[in-house]
Amino acid sequence: MSEAIKYAMGEDRIPHSWYNIVADFPTPPPPVLHPGHGGPIGPDDLAPLFPMALIGQEVSTERHIQIPKPVRDIYRMWRPTPLHRARRLEQALGTTARIFYKYEGVSPAGSHKPNTAVAQAFYNKAEGVTKLSTETGAGQWGSSLAFAGALFGLEVKVFMVKVSYQQKPYRRALMETYGATCVASPSNETEAGRAILAAHPESPGSLGMAISEAVEVAAKNADTKYALGSVLNHVLMHQTVIGIEAIEQMEAADAYPDVVIGCAGGGSNFAGLAFPFIGKKLRDKRDVRVIAVEPAACPSLTRGTYAFDFGDTAHMTPLVKMHTLGSEFVPPGFHAGGLRYHGMAPLVSHCKELGLIEARAYHQNPCFEAGVLFARNEGIVPAPESTHAVRAAIDEALKAREEGKSPTILFNLSGHGHFDMQAYTDYFAGKLRDQDYDPKELEASLAHLPKLAAE
Amino acid sequence: MSEAIKYAMGEDRIPHSWYNIVADFPTPPPPVLHPGHGGPIGPDDLAPLFPMALIGQEVSTERHIQIPKPVRDIYRMWRPTPLHRARRLEQALGTTARIFYKYEGVSPAGSHKPNTAVAQAFYNKAEGVTKLSTETGAGQWGSSLAFAGALFGLEVKVFMVKVSYQQKPYRRALMETYGATCVASPSNETEAGRAILAAHPESPGSLGMAISEAVEVAAKNADTKYALGSVLNHVLMHQTVIGIEAIEQMEAADAYPDVVIGCAGGGSNFAGLAFPFIGKKLRDKRDVRVIAVEPAACPSLTRGTYAFDFGDTAHMTPLVKMHTLGSEFVPPGFHAGGLRYHGMAPLVSHCKELGLIEARAYHQNPCFEAGVLFARNEGIVPAPESTHAVRAAIDEALKAREEGKSPTILFNLSGHGHFDMQAYTDYFAGKLRDQDYDPKELEASLAHLPKLAAE
Repeated sequence: MSEAIKYAMGEDRIPHSWYNIVADFPTPPPPVLHPGHGGPIGPDDLAPLFPMALIGQEVSTERHIQIPKPVRDIYRMWRPTPLHRARRLEQALGTTARIFYKYEGVSPAGSHKPNTAVAQAFYNKAEGVTKLSTETGAGQWGSSLAFAGALFGLEVKVFMVKVSYQQKPYRRALMETYGATCVASPSNETEAGRAILAAHPESPGSLGMAISEAVEVAAKNADTKYALGSVLNHVLMHQTVIGIEAIEQMEAADAYPDVVIGCAGGGSNFAGLAFPFIGKKLRDKRDVRVIAVEPAACPSLTRGTYAFDFGDTAHMTPLVKMHTLGSEFVPPGFHAGGLRYHGMAPLVSHCKELGLIEARAYHQNPCFEAGVLFARNEGIVPAPESTHAVRAAIDEALKAREEGKSPTILFNLSGHGHFDMQAYTDYFAGKLRDQDYDPKELEASLAHLPKLAAE
Repeated sequence: MSEAIKYAMGEDRIPHSWYNIVADFPTPPPPVLHPGHGGPIGPDDLAPLFPMALIGQEVSTERHIQIPKPVRDIYRMWRPTPLHRARRLEQALGTTARIFYKYEGVSPAGSHKPNTAVAQAFYNKAEGVTKLSTETGAGQWGSSLAFAGALFGLEVKVFMVKVSYQQKPYRRALMETYGATCVASPSNETEAGRAILAAHPESPGSLGMAISEAVEVAAKNADTKYALGSVLNHVLMHQTVIGIEAIEQMEAADAYPDVVIGCAGGGSNFAGLAFPFIGKKLRDKRDVRVIAVEPAACPSLTRGTYAFDFGDTAHMTPLVKMHTLGSEFVPPGFHAGGLRYHGMAPLVSHCKELGLIEARAYHQNPCFEAGVLFARNEGIVPAPESTHAVRAAIDEALKAREEGKSPTILFNLSGHGHFDMQAYTDYFAGKLRDQDYDPKELEASLAHLPKLAAE
């Protein structure tokens, strides 16, 4: 019976600025291209979708961007989040490794997503926007934007992937409790949705489809802007409060990670923890292995193509260069967690191309096995997404035991699983299948990657 | 847009001892009586059910009882819990009152219940117990004991009120993820359960029935002890960490409450916040109004009889003097939240008799209305139980506005509602009924109060 070890910090230690990794890259990331003419996109092209402050952040090369006081004031509701040493888990594994985790599930919405939701709501409000439209898959992002919208008095409309909408009524109820409107996507409310329903009436939906619907609503309504919960540069940057705090907390623990791990769907919680450590590696030559973990059912980093692609199914978004499974890729419906986006954040993809990060893919049963072991030792039930990071941390710790080494491992426990207990029930009942994506579907999807004049 | 105000404290400020209100009562509470002979009960009578350390705490008159280091070390996972100033809610109400709340939902199980679950698991483990049996209604307690059992390596068996078992599969999944076994009560596993099922095959269950089953399992198995999540003296005492921390945090906020509010089912979260303040009132003449809020569907404090009664349906427990609706009382099935126990904790009942606390009862719709207003302003979705405290705090704040006064109000936000979103969905759909208990059922139940030779 070892003691719980938590490295808490006072509110005065909440970071005063976000970290922009672009400032430290040895080579700049590729430009964003216009979906129509294929040339580089300008701020005016993005203005119908985003407030100018966020567009400025999207293209900024400044290393530090100040966190506005009202945003930092709301962060105080749950930040700094705790860093824990997983001593009980270490003992259960009999490992010589030290395992630390940063726990983002203490936010009111239960995950890391409010870090950017609050920032996005603030900048939109500041520029006079009154309504936000967005998409959500498993529901973590939609409920976080609903939370932020409530605090800033913004109307929030969420297009929720239909299969999740049906399977996760509690997530929908959470959004509605915060005052947001939640619609199953594909819906009849948009041209994009109607087109999909006409072709595939039984479509279970996908993030790509839901993004098309949410973007369309923003593009067609002057009072509405669009908000994205991952992928974009400014979204990842808002999440860097996680890693900035973790560096200081690790110092308080007299430690520095040899390995940093995060699960990766669009890439935001992974980047939030990892980028500040990668920055130290680039600037201070402080060595660190960084591992992105994705589901084998939706393996953009490990099986995707690095190419310019659309962010959505209806091809309304700009083209970004990323590891992609193709915008028409729909992951198998049996997959229990989130992490279902067809592409990886351009900045994470760039890190992969530069050799700054590793990637691996896991099937879901070993992840839930890890999640249960974690819950019974550390007391926190991880979100299905987060179990991917737990699994990788455990595997690294077991490898260390075999090799007789004592590395320090740090992973991001991005959220709790309280809204996802059905997935645990299915796991215990042996109902979760460990199946890869369909290779034929991947091939077909990749065949539709946009052909660019420049390539 | 006002800032979030949180009064956090370092881990070094976790209390080193629990507070025992019995030391400060002007008159001692009534004794506990033996269910067989009706005379005062002795430690040996309780030994089959509880470890000696907890029996000692149950009858202690010491003011302070030290928190064992292993318990305090686990408290560090989530304690000290934050105290928040509800500035946004104040502004939404246009009140001149100051509203503070202590938030216990940051624990891994999402409520205050782990404060005692961890302590009870520790003392049982220390005395060689390997299995615990318990009951749960809405599921907050069962999942908290499952959490504590996992951390101390104890097998936990939970008898869950059948209607909750069916309506709240996520709670059951949480207990199972922590490694506990969860059975719908009444069950076929005990004599008590079989007797109830024989008489009422369709029984939805009640806390009193589930207690009978859990007590029977402990009484019949030498390796198993029983754990209760509320009502008993030692349980309430373990919760006083809430109020002890709150006093220090209020001081940091340069404030002291004029009114202290908690919801009350068995009474543990209410007592946890209120008793340290009542203690200051008794010792230091520091004036404070204390309000216990209960559901109109199960109104033990406001409509019950103050009498010796059994804690369970099968009359296996000792007799305690409390405000009771009779051990056969079953609250209406339409009631959405917890707070469904037929009796009130003897120490809380004693406070009521001494005039140290007030009590009021609310219907559920106004409580959910308050919960939604709270969520949209403060960002946290309260557990259905906790919405009763929110409602009372709002009513006090509105009264202050009318009277032109500026009281300081403190309430206990005992847990989050993430496992109870169906109740919010039902509220939005207009499906929650505001109905009192059935007076005939109350009359019939009270007619069966035990007749004591001494009375």
